[in-house]
Amino acid sequence: MTTRLDTLINSLEGLEIITELSQVAKLSQDYHTFSPVLVPKLEGKVGDIVVRPANEEEVLKVAAACAKYRVPVTVRGAGTGNYGQCVPLHGGVILDMTRMHEIPWVKPGVARVEAGVKLAALDKKAREIGWEMRMTPSTYRTATIGGFIAGGSGGIGSVQYGLLGDRGNILALRVVTVEDEPRIIELRGDDVQKVNHAWGINGIITELEIPLGPAYPWAEVIVTFDDFMAAVNFGQALGNADGMIKKLISVFASQIPQYFHALQDYIPQGTHPVLLMLAESSLELLPGLVQEYGGKITYQKPAQEAGKGTHLAEFTWNHTTLHARTVDTSITYLQSMFPANQSLQLVEHLYHHFGDEVMMHLEFFRVNGSVIPGALQLVRYTTEERLNEIIRYHEAQGVFIANPHTYIIEDGGRKVIDPEQLKFKEMVDPYGLMNPGKSKALQLKIHN
Amino acid sequence: MTTRLDTLINSLEGLEIITELSQVAKLSQDYHTFSPVLVPKLEGKVGDIVVRPANEEEVLKVAAACAKYRVPVTVRGAGTGNYGQCVPLHGGVILDMTRMHEIPWVKPGVARVEAGVKLAALDKKAREIGWEMRMTPSTYRTATIGGFIAGGSGGIGSVQYGLLGDRGNILALRVVTVEDEPRIIELRGDDVQKVNHAWGINGIITELEIPLGPAYPWAEVIVTFDDFMAAVNFGQALGNADGMIKKLISVFASQIPQYFHALQDYIPQGTHPVLLMLAESSLELLPGLVQEYGGKITYQKPAQEAGKGTHLAEFTWNHTTLHARTVDTSITYLQSMFPANQSLQLVEHLYHHFGDEVMMHLEFFRVNGSVIPGALQLVRYTTEERLNEIIRYHEAQGVFIANPHTYIIEDGGRKVIDPEQLKFKEMVDPYGLMNPGKSKALQLKIHN
Repeated sequence: MTTRLDTLINSLEGLEIITELSQVAKLSQDYHTFSPVLVPKLEGKVGDIVVRPANEEEVLKVAAACAKYRVPVTVRGAGTGNYGQCVPLHGGVILDMTRMHEIPWVKPGVARVEAGVKLAALDKKAREIGWEMRMTPSTYRTATIGGFIAGGSGGIGSVQYGLLGDRGNILALRVVTVEDEPRIIELRGDDVQKVNHAWGINGIITELEIPLGPAYPWAEVIVTFDDFMAAVNFGQALGNADGMIKKLISVFASQIPQYFHALQDYIPQGTHPVLLMLAESSLELLPGLVQEYGGKITYQKPAQEAGKGTHLAEFTWNHTTLHARTVDTSITYLQSMFPANQSLQLVEHLYHHFGDEVMMHLEFFRVNGSVIPGALQLVRYTTEERLNEIIRYHEAQGVFIANPHTYIIEDGGRKVIDPEQLKFKEMVDPYGLMNPGKSKALQLKIHN
Repeated sequence: MTTRLDTLINSLEGLEIITELSQVAKLSQDYHTFSPVLVPKLEGKVGDIVVRPANEEEVLKVAAACAKYRVPVTVRGAGTGNYGQCVPLHGGVILDMTRMHEIPWVKPGVARVEAGVKLAALDKKAREIGWEMRMTPSTYRTATIGGFIAGGSGGIGSVQYGLLGDRGNILALRVVTVEDEPRIIELRGDDVQKVNHAWGINGIITELEIPLGPAYPWAEVIVTFDDFMAAVNFGQALGNADGMIKKLISVFASQIPQYFHALQDYIPQGTHPVLLMLAESSLELLPGLVQEYGGKITYQKPAQEAGKGTHLAEFTWNHTTLHARTVDTSITYLQSMFPANQSLQLVEHLYHHFGDEVMMHLEFFRVNGSVIPGALQLVRYTTEERLNEIIRYHEAQGVFIANPHTYIIEDGGRKVIDPEQLKFKEMVDPYGLMNPGKSKALQLKIHN
């Protein structure tokens, strides 16, 4: 492949190209290290070179060169994903999009951004006119918008707006095809689903239009409970309180806060904390609700101090796992969604069933109009067999598991690839060069 | 009573007082004329005088005088209520609050207003900084905020924020008591429920703090369907679409649009229209959803024209009834809420069951975290017996009816008065002078 690569490199004169091995290796990684199952499977998987395009014109050049020389191309943002989404299975070009961080415009309720814009940077810009991203992952300080759309599914804010895949949460995607003569295609309306959460196998996202939510002044609150299910029921009740505006409701079993060093003072040992982001105008109503469920408010940070000190969101969603793994690398996690009609009974059953082996961490979010608990349970890992047993038990109970211990799209949250996505894939990537090996449904067309 | 009244009038020197009979009679009325049952019951019920306070100090004077001379006092805003809420059963003072229309402040997400502020005026002011009322009745052009809180329950916007009684939708209420030495009491947090929807029996509301919602640019849309249940299912699906921001989803059976003269061109005869207010950023996603349910978009007004021409909201909620009654005064209405778990089947059953006698008009709104249909069905009135039969049939099917054909609080939507409201009532109105006769639970203490 080396000769082909050299020719490719030569054809990209003027573009920023990284060939230094340790750098390339670093930019071939993401946070799949959360999974002890993925680590051995993805070990040694590195790209051959990294290209860092400055604009769409350069992306077109890279796409044409990859098509011409039949070199795989794996697109990446900040690499904060956890399933090896941007680890190249068959070498080739790593396309690092982080230099494309322009924000063409922000209007009330909508923004147009390049794919490499960091979520925190977009939020900062949008807040100047009173708006912000509807939802962000816990990695928002470093993650890019393109990476979030291609590899993420929801996060802080999803309790209000649902998931990225819900109609209306992505307005437009502009992609470059990987063909002999690459094209630029702008997808709008329902067509954005052809590329959403497709792990970069369906065209190179260069620009996006996303809806914004109002930037309420968000207060941060910790409420603790002696009883775990009281914490869960409180979380659900707050989720259902239509007059109270919230951005985050995270519930933790009492074993988990030991991993939250910065919050130790506010979470008495043995209590189950709920971490909240709540519009300041709803804050006055919180004590009444907390009291109903027997909780105690132990920490409160007003919105005007949002930029200072500890930010509670950094302990939620998959940052919970990060904090736990910082202390104990044997810990891994699950991703679950409870069926709407019996979610809390199932949470209770599973909380007791696995005891200390599976530590319950719930995130409330909206699904089809209702607030339900999802979970990113912390798991004390022993063997892959045991992990699979735990997953199967959840599934047998009716819990949907978006398995984070696989790099195959269909084995994770998606289960099947949308036939529309496959049709689009054939059109935009006729040689099967984009992030090859990540989908069962696709025949590997690489000719090494 | 005349001597007592003259003394009272004398004691209120300097205040604006109306004694002219036709004026007083007019200001003793509201829109209970929607109900053929209420009309004869409230006929001839008028106050003795109208007082129009300019500020809270004057309200205190009126309260003291009413307490001293044991004269009933019935508070009113614009009189847009439909249950005779502000029709005085025992004469006395009509306290017209419409001169108190100051807006002390508007901040992002919250406003402080005097009780007599018109909803449209508050919206106009709030929109200057990008916010608006979370919900308004269809009478928002004339209705006052105090009247809405005391006599209303929800409206346009409730599909997002639920009802006024939901925690967080009222932040503070300031009331003047009717005692020998009237006091000013500010209720905050859950305590606001002591006065919410109490029809002015629990103190005179002088000032309020209410939360605001973001002022999205709202587009207005009409979608028509050949099949009624397709329209209903579409409405529910849009209600459940968490990524699409909406303020209004109103569904009408095909008989109703004949009363919407201004909309005739957009609603083909025999079709069932859905009237929508949708954030402009969600508009592009609408065609896909409409197509799924076999509907047709027949009208679309962009947000920048919101101030011009026909405003769809004016045909919804209880303005639907108003338009129908303009054409046919024999029409009256119901107010219903469908149980969350089987709402659409019940809608279908009732749509067929009563045929043309009960014309289905649905308004989707949030209850306890879920979007459900409520209904303000138009009823072709024949007799009170038949109306009660219709109501009883709905209730037997599990539909909650907030009966608009009674002036007794408990017989309407409330069913029972909160014991906290009763305790508060005893404190703030020891002589039972406030809007007497409207509650079963209260002994009439008036000494005529």
